[in-house]
Amino acid sequence: MLASAFMVGPAREATKGATRDSLRRHNLATVLRRVHRGGPQSRSALTAATGLNRSTIGALVAELVECGLVEEGEPEATGSAGRPSPLVRASTDHVVAAAVDIGTKWLTVAIGGIGGTLVTRVHRETNNDGRPYEETIAELCDLLDEVVGDLLPTQHLFAVGIAAPGVVRAHDGFVHFAPNLGWREVNLGADLAAHLGDDIVVFVANEAHLGARAEHLRGAGAGVEDLIYLSSEIGVGGGTIIAGRLQLGADGYSGEIGHIPVNTGPDATSCRCGSVGCLEAETGALALLALTGHQHTDHLSDAVRGIIATAAAGDEDVQRSLHEIGVRLGRGLAGMVNLLNPRRIVLGGYFADAFEFLAAGIDAELAQHTLSPSRSGVTIVPAALQEDSALLGALEIALEPLLLDPARSPAAAA
Amino acid sequence: MLASAFMVGPAREATKGATRDSLRRHNLATVLRRVHRGGPQSRSALTAATGLNRSTIGALVAELVECGLVEEGEPEATGSAGRPSPLVRASTDHVVAAAVDIGTKWLTVAIGGIGGTLVTRVHRETNNDGRPYEETIAELCDLLDEVVGDLLPTQHLFAVGIAAPGVVRAHDGFVHFAPNLGWREVNLGADLAAHLGDDIVVFVANEAHLGARAEHLRGAGAGVEDLIYLSSEIGVGGGTIIAGRLQLGADGYSGEIGHIPVNTGPDATSCRCGSVGCLEAETGALALLALTGHQHTDHLSDAVRGIIATAAAGDEDVQRSLHEIGVRLGRGLAGMVNLLNPRRIVLGGYFADAFEFLAAGIDAELAQHTLSPSRSGVTIVPAALQEDSALLGALEIALEPLLLDPARSPAAAA
Ligand SMILES: [Zn+2]
Ligand SMILES: [Zn+2]
Repeated sequence: MLASAFMVGPAREATKGATRDSLRRHNLATVLRRVHRGGPQSRSALTAATGLNRSTIGALVAELVECGLVEEGEPEATGSAGRPSPLVRASTDHVVAAAVDIGTKWLTVAIGGIGGTLVTRVHRETNNDGRPYEETIAELCDLLDEVVGDLLPTQHLFAVGIAAPGVVRAHDGFVHFAPNLGWREVNLGADLAAHLGDDIVVFVANEAHLGARAEHLRGAGAGVEDLIYLSSEIGVGGGTIIAGRLQLGADGYSGEIGHIPVNTGPDATSCRCGSVGCLEAETGALALLALTGHQHTDHLSDAVRGIIATAAAGDEDVQRSLHEIGVRLGRGLAGMVNLLNPRRIVLGGYFADAFEFLAAGIDAELAQHTLSPSRSGVTIVPAALQEDSALLGALEIALEPLLLDPARSPAAAA
Repeated sequence: MLASAFMVGPAREATKGATRDSLRRHNLATVLRRVHRGGPQSRSALTAATGLNRSTIGALVAELVECGLVEEGEPEATGSAGRPSPLVRASTDHVVAAAVDIGTKWLTVAIGGIGGTLVTRVHRETNNDGRPYEETIAELCDLLDEVVGDLLPTQHLFAVGIAAPGVVRAHDGFVHFAPNLGWREVNLGADLAAHLGDDIVVFVANEAHLGARAEHLRGAGAGVEDLIYLSSEIGVGGGTIIAGRLQLGADGYSGEIGHIPVNTGPDATSCRCGSVGCLEAETGALALLALTGHQHTDHLSDAVRGIIATAAAGDEDVQRSLHEIGVRLGRGLAGMVNLLNPRRIVLGGYFADAFEFLAAGIDAELAQHTLSPSRSGVTIVPAALQEDSALLGALEIALEPLLLDPARSPAAAA
């Protein structure tokens, strides 16, 4: 069953009048989200955090146990007096979701659940760049079948979240284009939904949006409600979290940070999008190769890591090239800081690996091109999750319907 | 009493578990917001729109009448059969708010209430540019006292919303700087709260943020949930509405659109912020004067309107200059479209007056610098509210606590 990523949210619920049933479900979701995000915690902690009374919390936890989403375990040993409260913790014994990462040179399928961690994964090296879409999807479906076949008999697969490196329409997972795969106008969401059948919900989203979401929930942006995430490999993409929520834009195409114009001078570099002076053309892996005098290669990531290693070994020419990348990146970031006043900017992909050589250039441009109140309120940090960020984000979107309405759990119906 | 603009919102409410009292208040607010935004409507329409039953709607409307926020009037004549339902409409007989616009050359204080319209106003021409802050505030306090003194004995002033042309800290209305007034680091929010006393809530916000909010609710962005508003006079500022909400950023400093770098070439113009190539320096009123060979003047707005009139009269040189402004503006807009994927961009200030001469240049740059799915989903339109946009936005922030929790009404307490 195909579903819309990110389309089910609190803002939508609030437009309709609330009834007593919706109140109970709202509270159920509140408790589940606290356990999902905050980890194992006692009923007392849940009581204090939610403002609900002890008996209400008891009934809500019991219902979540029945839904197969949490379990109550042994109390943590504490130094304080009084009867210890048992810990409520996430369970993947009954309800799980799959997270899929479609890369240029790999396919990964992982299994996880409430709690947000990946418990198993299958990773296959395979060159998807330029391969027919149908072949890639057929291999992915095989891989999904294999992973689903390995689930325990007690485990229900609730949903699949898919990270795609392309421009994804939010409401149906249609991919307009994915330049690093050679895809144009493919029905990724519908095709996978057809394979998986009506009982499994399918969500598709842009990999950088999912990276932003993952870094916000469990990485370098944890605890920060206003952040911008940028990641650079072959392409440069990103996502923005504003007031704690990933912002997709009107149709899901936000975060095309790679094509923001940052060089309008006569030395602007041509971009594969057809424009010139785009952030991606000026700061992506190809720009780094050009600045350091390297030829283009099929093994771009390896080449970039080699260049960064050379800088780390003390090569001052390469360090200067990375500084120049930092300056160009800083100019793009300055526009975003002026427009959005974020608290944090998280840099992923090779920007994270080369962070120490980029930072001074970024700072200099921010000092030049932003107003001081915005600048003094923002910090720029390397990403924490790196390769797993898209997978962790894909798991989160797959779990979202459960986190908003735990009564949808397939274990509850069983 | 000083309060934080925009800090009270549904996202915050949802973090705590809901009780039956909070449920009733939530439903009360839902009904009030429908009348505020949608105008007079029958109980039947409210029943259909909220999903609540007739008797619940009846009780909620009765409580809103008691709070002095709505009244029930004669039914509209309809062609349909059956007993007509009386209309619930906003009332300003008991509870009102003041909206203040602090301009370079004027002070305006208006009175309005639920329903979002301004019922009276006092406008005073006064040169605030370079005048000591204390003098401007003293005159504003006199003006407020005068307007409050003219209220009916039955009318309670609930709150004051203030539009300031500067960088405003959201949580306390501190103004870091307001370049067109010559203000630096002034306690605008606290100073007005001290004058008005503990019973009146004071909110301060940036005028362009308020313009964005007003255009979204009642102007050229009505019905659109993802939009960017830009306005140009002496400075260029703006605000972004994402998923239906004004986004302030981490500290309230978002929308400093005027200082986004849009020209990195050797011909970049110096900006009064100390940088070069800012959107404001390249497209603001001074840029238009420079492009058309005019000298700087104290009557900048008049000069700009004169230039636009010349273009409208057929002067092709001036039309070409406006086209060049459109090209520069389009480059800045392209970055925003790539980053945020808005549905609509609303142009205010002189950009609205000159819209027909800017449009082709804007379109050409968007075609060059944005990806097609984002570009085909966005329309660019002139603002509809113009001079009143900041006042209408100021009224909205003043009403926000009532719209979130109508039981706070001073008439309810009386
Ligand atoms: Zn490009
Ligand atoms: Zn500037």
